[in-house]
Amino acid sequence: MHVLVIGAAGMIGQKLVQRLARDPHIGGKPIERLTLQDVVEPEAPKGSSFKVTTRAGDVTVPGEAAALVADAPEVIFHLAAIVSGEAETDFEKGYRINLDGMRFLLEAIRARGHKPKLVFTSSIAVFGAPFPPAIPDEFHLTPLTSYGTQKAIGELLLADYTRRGFLEGVGIRLPSIVVRPGKPNMAASGFFSNIIREPLAGHEAVLPVPDTVLHTHASPRAAIGFLLHGAELSREQIGPRVGITMPGVCCTVAEQIEALRRVAGEKVVARIRRATDPLVARIVEGWPSRFDARRAVALGFRAEKDFEEIIRIHIEDELGGKIV
Amino acid sequence: MHVLVIGAAGMIGQKLVQRLARDPHIGGKPIERLTLQDVVEPEAPKGSSFKVTTRAGDVTVPGEAAALVADAPEVIFHLAAIVSGEAETDFEKGYRINLDGMRFLLEAIRARGHKPKLVFTSSIAVFGAPFPPAIPDEFHLTPLTSYGTQKAIGELLLADYTRRGFLEGVGIRLPSIVVRPGKPNMAASGFFSNIIREPLAGHEAVLPVPDTVLHTHASPRAAIGFLLHGAELSREQIGPRVGITMPGVCCTVAEQIEALRRVAGEKVVARIRRATDPLVARIVEGWPSRFDARRAVALGFRAEKDFEEIIRIHIEDELGGKIV
Repeated sequence: MHVLVIGAAGMIGQKLVQRLARDPHIGGKPIERLTLQDVVEPEAPKGSSFKVTTRAGDVTVPGEAAALVADAPEVIFHLAAIVSGEAETDFEKGYRINLDGMRFLLEAIRARGHKPKLVFTSSIAVFGAPFPPAIPDEFHLTPLTSYGTQKAIGELLLADYTRRGFLEGVGIRLPSIVVRPGKPNMAASGFFSNIIREPLAGHEAVLPVPDTVLHTHASPRAAIGFLLHGAELSREQIGPRVGITMPGVCCTVAEQIEALRRVAGEKVVARIRRATDPLVARIVEGWPSRFDARRAVALGFRAEKDFEEIIRIHIEDELGGKIV
Repeated sequence: MHVLVIGAAGMIGQKLVQRLARDPHIGGKPIERLTLQDVVEPEAPKGSSFKVTTRAGDVTVPGEAAALVADAPEVIFHLAAIVSGEAETDFEKGYRINLDGMRFLLEAIRARGHKPKLVFTSSIAVFGAPFPPAIPDEFHLTPLTSYGTQKAIGELLLADYTRRGFLEGVGIRLPSIVVRPGKPNMAASGFFSNIIREPLAGHEAVLPVPDTVLHTHASPRAAIGFLLHGAELSREQIGPRVGITMPGVCCTVAEQIEALRRVAGEKVVARIRRATDPLVARIVEGWPSRFDARRAVALGFRAEKDFEEIIRIHIEDELGGKIV
């Protein structure tokens, strides 16, 4: 099987590629070939059993999408996106990459005519306030950001191209992915990861919101599991509503901190400094906090059972099992 | 005030223009200038008090959208669309006109920077089965046609461009417009009009579905009222969810026929011939039948009170008050 990963240099892309290198199968079928694309040339995984091609390119440049699907990859992961904050500050870039990029890819697939499986990373940003206490699978698409609008449009296009038989699409609506590895970033949601990752690494972290804030999380490892499981589901299992809200661990910041205390002790928790940032607190208030992701669970998507497990996965996957 | 109507040569476009000629105001402000555009040159209304410019053009041709908004029309009605059936048979044309056309217009407005009111004709085709007994305002966007997908995307774009302050958008989700004037057409929904219009004109009409079929209707006159009322609402009244399901008269085909009997007598009703068409019956089964359009009603949108009123409006507006 030939697998194409668009956006392979990002955090999720890299982890997906590492996972495919370790376990070169999707749905029981062996991977013979992997094509990795991103705006910067992605790194090929070490020690993989299959042939790897890497490619730097922009899917909105004429010809690029056609070149990517020319060899008829059976499974395509489309992870490339301008993130929420940048899509809000750079309106044109967000629409160019997140909407036009998706359309160029869909049209290239339609023209190629080989009907691949297309796994698209969507987001809970397709939902906008006001929210019910738990957002059901049938909640309407009411994005309140350009990013969320672009992801919602991506889902609608994916559903129509699937219905018309040009491909088999699935939209994976990811919750917040925590604990993100690497340096703290400027994302308003960054603190959910920072308050775990930094203290575990011996550094101080700032908590800018009250610890009563409720939010839904899944680990990077769970996110990769979602993408692979999505690639394995049949069109009949997915049905016409191709955007699926993923499950996650719903807990308060206080519960996150308690889990950290149980895993790593008081010394580590003491590295969290509380300094409320009214702007961040207001942004976070507008976010969905809890989902009732029944459909995903019924389809076999699995998240962690509690936040402690999310922390342990971070320690295993990023810290070699060790805490400073 | 300068008003632009895109798609002015269609049935709704023509009726909107006639109405504006009779009553040259929107929201109490006088209309000084009207620009009419369509792929075929629209007819200027007779005896209007304002200046009329007509223009044949395709909004997806580079420069056309910019030319249309160059003189900064304060109110724009975007009615141009490839209809449901054709968008399904001609995939590329549907996306070009219904999606790219909308984006060209939105981008031209953003570039012009004058923040007009934009009234967009959406459709109940943004909803797809399975449905609850009455579709609430919060029902999710689940189109099962390319046309419905394109209209749903149009609403999402309209909401985001509104949120960003580039324009003030409102999406008017029209129910079936009955009684359509003119000749019977090939639309699967055509019989809802045919069984009223043709008998009233002395001709036979075929009813291809059981008379238990339940459906929601509004007259062409009500549709024009929806568009004008939409243009008069403030951004604050509309809020972030710019797509609004319009009210209508929900009744069975049997109730339509009873209303015709009351208005025009048994002789006219006897011109309806029952000949079930299993294909049409199956298509109609997949359509939404009833809406709970609370938001629209609270905002002051008004449909007819019953189907009899819809028939009387047809007789007044199309038959000069006379029945054959």
